[in-house]
This record gives sequence, structure tokens and C-alpha cells, in this order.
Amino acid sequence: MRVMANIGVGQRRLEGRAKVTGATRFTADLRLVGLTHARLLLSPHAAARIRRVGLEAVRQAPGVLDAVSGADLPPAAAPGPDLPLARERVYFAGQPVVAVVAETEEAAADAAALAEVEYELLEPVLDIEAALLEGSPVVLDSPAGGMDDAGAHGVGGGGEDEGAVAAPNVTSQVRFQEGDVEQALASSAVVVRGSYRLPAVHQGFLETHVSAAAPAPDGSLTVWTPTQGSFLTRRTVAERLGVPLSEIRVVPMAVGGGFGGKVCLLEPLVALLARRVGRPVMLELTRTEEFLMGRGGPAASVEIELGSDLAGSLRALRARVAFDNGAGPGGLGALAALLMAGVYRLPAYQVVALDVATNKTPVAAYRAPGAQQAFFPLESAMDELAERLGQDPIELRVRNASRQGDPRPDGQPWPRIGLTECLEAARRHPVYTSPVAEGEGIGVAVGAWGGGREPAAAGCRVEPDGTLLLHLGSVDISGTDTTLAMIAAETFGTSVERVRVETGDTGTAPYAGMAGGSKTVYTVGPAVQQAAAEARRQLLQIAAEELEAAVEDLELEDGEVRVAGVPGRSLEVGHLAGLAAQFGGRYPPVLGQGRAAITEASPMFTVHIARAHVDADTGHWRLTGYAAIQDVGRALNPPEVEAQIHGGALQSLGRVLGEELVWDGEGQLQTASFIDYGLPTIDQAPSIQVELLEIPSPIGPYGAKGVGEPPAVPGPPAVANAIYAACGRRLRELPADFGRLLEAPAPADLVEDTVR
Amino acid sequence: MRVMANIGVGQRRLEGRAKVTGATRFTADLRLVGLTHARLLLSPHAAARIRRVGLEAVRQAPGVLDAVSGADLPPAAAPGPDLPLARERVYFAGQPVVAVVAETEEAAADAAALAEVEYELLEPVLDIEAALLEGSPVVLDSPAGGMDDAGAHGVGGGGEDEGAVAAPNVTSQVRFQEGDVEQALASSAVVVRGSYRLPAVHQGFLETHVSAAAPAPDGSLTVWTPTQGSFLTRRTVAERLGVPLSEIRVVPMAVGGGFGGKVCLLEPLVALLARRVGRPVMLELTRTEEFLMGRGGPAASVEIELGSDLAGSLRALRARVAFDNGAGPGGLGALAALLMAGVYRLPAYQVVALDVATNKTPVAAYRAPGAQQAFFPLESAMDELAERLGQDPIELRVRNASRQGDPRPDGQPWPRIGLTECLEAARRHPVYTSPVAEGEGIGVAVGAWGGGREPAAAGCRVEPDGTLLLHLGSVDISGTDTTLAMIAAETFGTSVERVRVETGDTGTAPYAGMAGGSKTVYTVGPAVQQAAAEARRQLLQIAAEELEAAVEDLELEDGEVRVAGVPGRSLEVGHLAGLAAQFGGRYPPVLGQGRAAITEASPMFTVHIARAHVDADTGHWRLTGYAAIQDVGRALNPPEVEAQIHGGALQSLGRVLGEELVWDGEGQLQTASFIDYGLPTIDQAPSIQVELLEIPSPIGPYGAKGVGEPPAVPGPPAVANAIYAACGRRLRELPADFGRLLEAPAPADLVEDTVR
Repeated sequence: MRVMANIGVGQRRLEGRAKVTGATRFTADLRLVGLTHARLLLSPHAAARIRRVGLEAVRQAPGVLDAVSGADLPPAAAPGPDLPLARERVYFAGQPVVAVVAETEEAAADAAALAEVEYELLEPVLDIEAALLEGSPVVLDSPAGGMDDAGAHGVGGGGEDEGAVAAPNVTSQVRFQEGDVEQALASSAVVVRGSYRLPAVHQGFLETHVSAAAPAPDGSLTVWTPTQGSFLTRRTVAERLGVPLSEIRVVPMAVGGGFGGKVCLLEPLVALLARRVGRPVMLELTRTEEFLMGRGGPAASVEIELGSDLAGSLRALRARVAFDNGAGPGGLGALAALLMAGVYRLPAYQVVALDVATNKTPVAAYRAPGAQQAFFPLESAMDELAERLGQDPIELRVRNASRQGDPRPDGQPWPRIGLTECLEAARRHPVYTSPVAEGEGIGVAVGAWGGGREPAAAGCRVEPDGTLLLHLGSVDISGTDTTLAMIAAETFGTSVERVRVETGDTGTAPYAGMAGGSKTVYTVGPAVQQAAAEARRQLLQIAAEELEAAVEDLELEDGEVRVAGVPGRSLEVGHLAGLAAQFGGRYPPVLGQGRAAITEASPMFTVHIARAHVDADTGHWRLTGYAAIQDVGRALNPPEVEAQIHGGALQSLGRVLGEELVWDGEGQLQTASFIDYGLPTIDQAPSIQVELLEIPSPIGPYGAKGVGEPPAVPGPPAVANAIYAACGRRLRELPADFGRLLEAPAPADLVEDTVR
Repeated sequence: MRVMANIGVGQRRLEGRAKVTGATRFTADLRLVGLTHARLLLSPHAAARIRRVGLEAVRQAPGVLDAVSGADLPPAAAPGPDLPLARERVYFAGQPVVAVVAETEEAAADAAALAEVEYELLEPVLDIEAALLEGSPVVLDSPAGGMDDAGAHGVGGGGEDEGAVAAPNVTSQVRFQEGDVEQALASSAVVVRGSYRLPAVHQGFLETHVSAAAPAPDGSLTVWTPTQGSFLTRRTVAERLGVPLSEIRVVPMAVGGGFGGKVCLLEPLVALLARRVGRPVMLELTRTEEFLMGRGGPAASVEIELGSDLAGSLRALRARVAFDNGAGPGGLGALAALLMAGVYRLPAYQVVALDVATNKTPVAAYRAPGAQQAFFPLESAMDELAERLGQDPIELRVRNASRQGDPRPDGQPWPRIGLTECLEAARRHPVYTSPVAEGEGIGVAVGAWGGGREPAAAGCRVEPDGTLLLHLGSVDISGTDTTLAMIAAETFGTSVERVRVETGDTGTAPYAGMAGGSKTVYTVGPAVQQAAAEARRQLLQIAAEELEAAVEDLELEDGEVRVAGVPGRSLEVGHLAGLAAQFGGRYPPVLGQGRAAITEASPMFTVHIARAHVDADTGHWRLTGYAAIQDVGRALNPPEVEAQIHGGALQSLGRVLGEELVWDGEGQLQTASFIDYGLPTIDQAPSIQVELLEIPSPIGPYGAKGVGEPPAVPGPPAVANAIYAACGRRLRELPADFGRLLEAPAPADLVEDTVR
């Protein structure tokens, strides 16, 4: 059997040196001749009609090239908060109303302040529960309420129309149910109930949203952006501008932090402005603008009831998850409901997920979107149930964990999953087993992620110097280029040092989907494998002719093709490739191509263990230990996988340590800076012990599963459970700041609300 | 049978609109932030040692960033005139000695004038015959004389060592021979003899040589250049800089005229300078610099003897072709010799071709390089022979024309060629048959071109809007992008309007060779056909699943895939491609790839007919009619093919109408501007009637053969023969200016020199 020279062997990030030496050129570093700068005027009101926009003074300000409001831009098919600039109405405080293009950023900002916008204030809808009340003002123009086809079908069916919630501002809803949940709860020996709230959060990336666009003399436009998905951005820009796809070229730039939040925000506006002024335009958000109009993860309000028999076998789950999507359609409901009802074996369940609109900043994806909102309540309830039953919390989970073949709410059976293995490993883990100190508690929680799928292609060219050139359309937000290079090296038979990754723009890159859903290596990897294998096959064919040997007798190693067992009969890979790239050459160029469309996901599971110490008098708490156990299928680049888990875990801990977007009663964001928004600092971070389990995926390249999303899920419930164990106070609201912790319910105060 | 919707149907050039509206961005139009400008100091001497280069004053001049001589650049493996800057010696007047980089072009030029270069003059070798004399100074450092392996092998063998010319300054030589040429000439009934001289010429492109290079923070370099061969340029630059291929990215820019002369000249120097100053550098030659250091086509001196029997069957050819390559190795000898000895059936021949170095500007390729030097003497001699024999000049050629299966000098048999068909068509052509006026004469001449071969790849992506995106590595210098788009459209089943060509840079483009040798459509076309056919196959597979039909029952037309015979059962091409480029899609992306390596050429033949009126007293002559008949295999884009022939014919006529690079006795170029260099003006151009013959190539796409080179060959002999017919004076030297014409030999003065 062939020994893997690259897979499972730690590799430094290919782009790491450039990043740490400052050589990486980010979008804001782009210097384009004739570059102009745009700045925005944002709405100060959460809900209002725009009566008048006066731009006379703006246009006459020094250095100003253009000043526009929404009315100056081409009309869009659908009105609403997603327009590049507000038109007639504003839907949230922070919505862009006016854009000014000037020779300098300062001139643009100064001029924007001269805009005269007259608003007629409307009553904003700010609270999710209020938004659901009959008679609430309607946030979005499109009809609210009723079942949204797209949302339901997006999870493969299972949503049913009967029993739909008829409330204003519900943009979509899904319901998964099985058995008679009412009867099953009534007959359960133990039922725990709780209402949970998770705040809206921001991805907190270092690089704020930024884009540049330049018009070409032929009328086409080039857009430079740190997008996670260049093809998706191309489509969005082309649609907004009403031009063919071929007139937009998106150049994906290095992403200074994405986490799901960098897909397409400013690009259509910047493209429109560049086309108007006929010069390159760049727009970079300030940090405050980023908070006001960048799109974070949604707040959620969850009610849950979980019942079991006395032995600890779950009988029923009833839950309602309501996402507060701000002034947008959201769309995470189905995902959250599917996870919530699918992770444990449940004879009866009813999970309803509502997407609700309010007059706050619209939301987008943020690492494992929807999963935190499912697992914080579910894993808190499991912990509560274990305590009520007097069972070990891991034992309870193992007993009920879904296994291969169990039905999921969408009707599909679970494939081979690693949930029980993660739980068993957690049970043995020192962070779980070592004795607790005074005031310390241990909590565990499960997290999961289904995994996205998307077709992808890749190219692999062999250069006359022996280098393997990997041509990709995917964007690297988490070290995937390095892993894909490793896959290419392993498949072709070379070392990763000889692989060079070329990330193409949308003009020439092989198609790949957005970097998100923990799917890049999983879905692009097979295309890379195919491409590298094909390049190897082509090269060996040339070698066979040149060396007058059968392909089966050839070995490719150390940059050479050798005839096995015949010392000296060898030719360099680069020489062979060069034969196919020269005048008069008789071999076709060595250029492999891979095209893959994985149709099955390999769902990912993780278990986190938290140890927390709580001062019961002050509410002061801190993490004293942490472990993350995760089934990664196969760790292709182990240190990178561990680093992903570190980062993900810490990012999920932010939600319990202090991250929270807070709006006041008028819809003004109170946390629009890193002073006010509680991004965790490194002194709050626990030492995170990572344990990798490798239960190979039958589908992913070399057995790999997705990695990035699961660790971002179970931090809050693991910590909440540890805090409960430490002090007997159950967190039902995040984050767990000192004050809130003291207000958290003690055991006696268990909330007994039932789900509506 | 399927009707061809695209092939053979005239199409406008895809890039035509951008070119005529000025939207095309040429290299000199590039605006790079921080761009600096280089200017050169050229050697005023044809041959000298460099004693000292003083750059102190230069470096202190305002705006100067860097000033370098050859000694400041990394040493190269081989010294000589091809170094970016002269080192120790200069080999021709115009050789770059000093480069200055400054903030502006003017500052660089002003500063360059301050350089102090001390030369020790050497005796220049300027005349080709003097260069061959024993005791002549040696022009190049590398050993001259002897048989050059590369030159001989380059034409598939046939060169023989015995009888090699042992003369100084011969850089390579080839000899093709068959039979006893001495005896065959002696026994010929008629022998014509002549000495011919062709001057050096310049390609005369509108855009002078220009390149820009920019260093990236990671140490790599991007080079923008109007090169005809991006991969060749990448290799040359990487070699000169001593860096891996992967550190150089060559972006091929629109070529403002190439004709073989735009491959790689300034790029290594500009790259070296950019690396030194750490900023982008652009160097654009002035027109005078272009003439002094740009590389045109070589002068040649040819002696020929041609004998036949009384019936007009050729018996023997003896010829010596000597190329004056200036201060470079040249290398066209083999090609010229092969053509000269191969076009007619010859029982005995001996053709020797010498590449000779002199202290003049080195040469490069210029449209059909080597062929003019073969056909001007050969076709003049054929004309002379016809007259001596009292035969029709076309009849004589038809009688002796090589046909399929006849052996070529390289030992290979001719494939099916169109020489006799072209001659027969010429015989019927009105320009040949219509009566002559007083003082008017008619001349005919044959031209030929073998055709280059090189492996090539291409990609073809189907976009979600139904567009076909063709990814190419070849450079368009003659409308090839349009023709390749037509091939893709035809093969896929769409219209050329829905095809978009993306010319990739060397980082991501599929490999293709230099645009030259009339080979782009011939060699890249098959790769495009494969790629488009593969994309079509992939798309139809998706359609078959979506439409629940067998692939065989599907039709692809008008941007839709239809189930044959079932009205309404159809889906749009873009929709189908979009299914393979979306989240959760179950089809791999539609991305075809083609890889081709044509190993057989399809040689091209043409016959030109010229009518000239000559005033026998003044020598004033003008063209009164012109026809070009060419076998193009298959005219894929007929108006473009005709335009190629128009342009080629006119370019070859320049050599007889007045083009000539003239050096004085000290090696100073006397024709370094368009005032002094006699590029023909449109009033000198005849109306050129093009007749296309289509004898399909069994290899080229849709039967196509190369087009661009053959029309540039037979203009001078056709005109010379017409002039002879008009006034009885035979041109043995080009161009045919009035004075020279009056000095040309009258019939009685026939030169009786024999070949050495």
C-alpha cells in the first residue's frame, strides 16, 4: 500500500508567509490609477419614509464627482432594504441612503454630511414577540405570513401548511413533526421546559466590508472584493445592473475574515457608481458602518419542551424557534429545525421555525448559521433533563443519540455519523474526568452541522519546471488552498512545495461555489483529485512513450518518472511536461481537469466540554478548562484542522462571553464599535484541547469531512451547563455577563411555559 | 447532414468594435500606480569594446530612480548581443548599453544622455560576402563555422557534414542534395543562372516594442506585453532572471502589429529593472529605437542555377542562400532550402543555406520568414526559364509542380497539396488572361509555407446565461479569436454572438504556442473543437436527465435543448448550465477541455499574378493589376481569410515597392524612420483580387489550413516577372526602385555566375 506523503502530514499555510510579512494585498490595499472613493450617508432612523433627498450642496462640495440617492439608481424589480441605496423607505437605522463619490475618502465623507434628507418617521418594530402580534406594523413590503415555498423546499420537504402561524412579519416558516407530540409530552415521566434567547452577533472580522470596481472602455466592469463567493457575487452584481454575466468580472481578493458574512454587500453599489463616474471607485466601511450595515447573525427566541421516560429515553420534543432577522427575509429556520429534531432519537416531535422581520440591521450567515440557535436550547434542555433524571449528561446523550439509519426529519436516514464516538471520547476526556475545584462545574454539549454541497471544477497543469499548477475558482477563507494543494500533491505524486495555487477570477476560473457550509475541501477536493489524477495519467503516457516502457511499470517520485527496477531509466516531470509545451511537440499539453458534484453530505458532529468557575456572590465567572472533540472524517492537514477547531470554539464562546448587538427602543444600535461590542479578548479564552476523531467519510477526499462549522456551535450550551453545575443557575439568555448570571433562574425557578 | 451555421459564414472580428472605437487598451495605455519609465542609451557604434560606463551624472539627474549598464545586471550564461544591456562589447549600432528608470519618460531620456560611455572601436563586419572571407573579423563570440546541429535537425535531418562551408561568421548551415547536380546541370538543355539580393526589412507594425513589469510584494513579477507568445516570453524572462517559471506571470496584451517580430525583446530588461526599483516600470521604444534595435527580417544573397530539358522538365537546381542575420544566429537557412528544393520535382539538386553574422541589427521572424528569400530567386529563375524555352510560365510550373507523394528534401512525401490547383486557377484568372496594354506586363509566382505545429489546449465553460466562454492561451494577431469562437459555436451548436473569448495570462491559461507559423487556428482549433464538443456532451447529459429523454433524442438549437419531435419539451442552455453551478446542484459544472497535438502539417500554396506598367525611359513603374489565388483548405471566416491575403500580399509587395533597411559603411542605419524607410503607401497598392481554393486539410479544423503566411511570399517575384515582361529588364535586387530598375540587367546581360 502506498504511504501517504502529504495527507495527514502537517503543512504550513501556502499563503501564510505573505500574510505574516504583510505582502498580501487586500482589497483596501489596491491602488488603481484614477481611483475615486465613495462614502455613504446612513439612515438615522429605523423606520421612515423618505420625503426628499437634497444633494445640491453635496454635488457642489470640493472634490465631489457624483452624489446619488436610491432614486438616481436604476429601479430594481423588488423594493426593500436590500437595494444598494434606500428608495422611498428606510427599514433600519444604518441603511445607506446617499452615496458620494469624490477624489478622496475625506472629501466624500465631508460632502455626504451636507446631504439633506427629510424623513417621515414610522413606528419601528424592534421586538420579535411584538413583531408577531396581530396589528403590528409590517416591516417589509412583501406580504408576510404564510408558508414560504423556498424555505420549506430548501430542506427537502417536510414543512406542512396546516397549523401555519398566521402572524405579521413572519417571512417564512417551517414545521417538522412526527407522532402525537401533545400526547407524548403528557405521557412523559419528566418534561423540562424553557424559553431561551440568543442575541444578534457580528462576525467581527478584522477587515470591514470593502469593494472596488472599475469600468473598462468596452463597457464591462471589474469588481475586486474579498468575497467568499466570486461567482455568486458576479451573478448578484449582473442582476442588479441588468447586464449579462459576461460583462462583470469578479476578482476574488484575500479575505480578511469572512465567517459567512462576506459574500455580496457593497459590490452592486460600487459597480453602479463606477459605471456612473467612469472611473474606479472604492468603498470601505468604517468599523461603525460595518456594525450598522454589515450583516451579522440573527437573534433568536426559542421555546422548548423535552420529555423522557424515567430511564432517560426521550419521548417528545416540542419547540418553536423564532429568528429575528432584522429587515430581511432570513431563512435559517429550516436548518435550525432540522438539527433540533434530528440529533436525538425522538418518537414524537414538533418543531416550528419562524423567520421574523424587524426594523433592525438585516442578518446574513455567520459560521454554522442557525445551529447555535438550535443547540443552545436543546443542549441546555438535555443537561436539565439529565439532572432531573439523575443521569450522567453524556450517558443520557449516548442513549438517545441518532445513529446510522435513524430517520431524519427530512425523511432521509442518517448516514454513518460520529456522534456517539464523540460522546464516548468526551466521557474519557481529562477535562471531563478530572476532579472539580470549589466553585467549578463541568458542562458538555453536542454540536452538529449538516454540510453544504455544490458542484465544483478544478484544473491542474504541469509546468515545464515540474511545478503543479492548481487552478481554482474557490476562495480560501480557512486554509483550504493548502489542503487542496496537498490533495493535488498526493494524487499526482509530488510534494506540496511543488504545487502552486492560482485562484482565478470569474472570467476564467473553473466554477466553484461560495466558501461556506464547511464544504470547500469536501466539494472542491474531489474535483482537485480528478484533475491531478488526470494530469498524472497524461504525464505517465508521455513518459511511457519516451522511456519505451508500459505505464504500469512507471513510478512517479521525487519529481521524476522512473521505470521500476531499471536504475537510470528516468525522466524529470518538468522535462516531460515541457515536451508537450514546445514548438513541434507531439504530445498534447499536460492539463488535467476535474468536475465533481457530490450529492450526499457527510454530517459532522462534535462535543465540547467546558469547565467554569463561578463566584456565586458576584456572578464573576471564568472558563477553567475546555475540550473540543470532533469527528473530522480524516484530518488532511492536522494542525490546520486543530486551528480551525480552536478558532471556531473561541468564536462560539464569544456568544457566551459577551458578544451581543444591542438596539435601543428606537432601533439605534448601541454597540457599533469594538468598545461597546464585547468581542472576547485573549485573556478570557480558555486553553482549548482539541481531540480529533477520524471516522472516514465514504465521499469526501481521502475520507475528509467538513471542519469549520461544527466547533462554532456548542460553546454556549457547554458553558451554560458548566455554570449551572458550578452555581446552580441556568442561563437562558446569552451572553452570560455577570449581571445576567445573577438574574438567571435558580433550580427552583424553572420556567414552565409551554410552547404555543 | 447538418448545415454549418457558423463555418464559412463571414463574421465580424470580435475585438473589432473595441479597436475601431479606441476602447482597446494596448500596453502603452496601461496605467499602473507608481509606474516609472525606462529609457535606453543605445550604442552609436557597430562594433566596439566598452571601456567604461560612467553613470554618476545620470544617477544624480532629477527624477532618476536607477541607472544601469550591463555590468550591473546579473551575469548571463552566454554573453553576446542578446543580453538585455551590452556587457564588455557592442555588436551593432543601436544595441542598448544603458537603461535609466525615472519618474517620467522625459526625465529618463534626459538623464540617459548624461551617461559617459567610452568605447574602443573595432572593425565592423557589414557586408555578407566580406563576412564570409577568410580573415574577416569574427562578429559573435561563439565559434562560427561548421555544421550546426540544431539548424540541421530542425528540419528533420538531411543536412550533411561533408562539403560544409568553412568560413568565418557562418553560425549555421544546411545542405540538401539529391543526385549528381553537376552532371545534371551540364546535361541540361537550358540553364539559367542568377545572383539575387534581398534587403533587410522591418515588420513596420504601428505599435513599437513596449513592455511593462511590476514586482509583487511576494517577489513575483507580472509582465504586460503585446507578445505573440506569452508562454515563450515567460520562459525567456524566467531564464534571464534565474527564477522559477511560477514567479513570472505574463499578461498578453493586445498586439498592435506583430508579424513575427513581437515575441520577447524588452521583457527581460523591464523585469530586471522593475525588480531593482521595486516599482512598475514601462519601456516603450521610439520609432527610431524600434528601427535601430527592433528585429526585422534578414537580408539575403542568393545564387541560383536551374536547368531543364527542352520540353521544360526541370533537371537540376543548384543554389546557395546566405542570410545576413546581423549580430545574431539567425536560423532560417533550413527553411529556405527546404522550400527551394521541394516545390518542384527535381531529379538533382544541391541547396546550401548559410546563416551569417554581421555587425548590424539582429534579425527575427517576419511573416513567412525564409520563404521570400527562397521564392524571389526561384520564381525569377522559373520565369527566365519559361522565356528561354518559349513556354507559358504557368504551363512550365504545372509541368514541374510537386504533387502528393513526391519526396521532399527532408525525406517526407508531400501530402495532398494545392499547388497545381492554384496554378490552374491562375491560368484562368482574368488578371492573367485579359489583354495587356502598351508597356504592361504580366508576371506570376508561386509561394508556399509549410506551417508550424505546437501542442495546444483550450477550455470551454457554459455560463448560466447561456454564453459559451472560451478560455485560450493563444494570442490573437490576425483574427484567430473570432475564428476559434466560430469553431466553438459550430461545434457546440450556438452562434458566435454567444461566445466570449477569455485570453488567459500564463498563470491560468491553457497552454498554446506562439501565434506564428500560420498555426493558431490549425493547432488551437482542434483543442477548441474538443473542448466545445465536450461541453456540449456534458450539457446534453444534464438535459437528458432533466427532460427525461435519451441524449440521442435531443437537439441543441437557438440556445435551447429540445426533445426532437416533442414541441414544448425544451430547456434553455443557460438554465441547464446553471443547474450545475448552484448550491446543492447535482450535476458537475459544464466545463469542456480540449488538448491537441497535431503532428502533421498541411502545407499551403499560393500563386500571385501581377500586372505592371513600366516607363522604359524613366524606370517609373506601377502595379496595374494583382491577383492572389490561395488554397486555404477551408475558409472558416471568408472575409477574414481574404483580408489576411490582402494584407499579406501588400506586405510582400513592400519588399519590391521600396522597403529596405540600409546601413552605411560604418554600420549606421540610414533608414531609422518612416521618412527614410519606404513602407508602401496606399496609392502604391494595386487592387488585389483574392481567389480562395478549398482543398480541405484532413487534419485542420473543418478542413482549414493556415492562411497568414503564404500571401506574404510571392509578391516580389510576381512583380519582377511582370516588370520583365513589360520592359525586358530583370530585377535581381529588391526593392525595384526606379534607379535600380534602369540598372537591372537587360536580356543580353544574363548573369552567368555559377554557384560556388
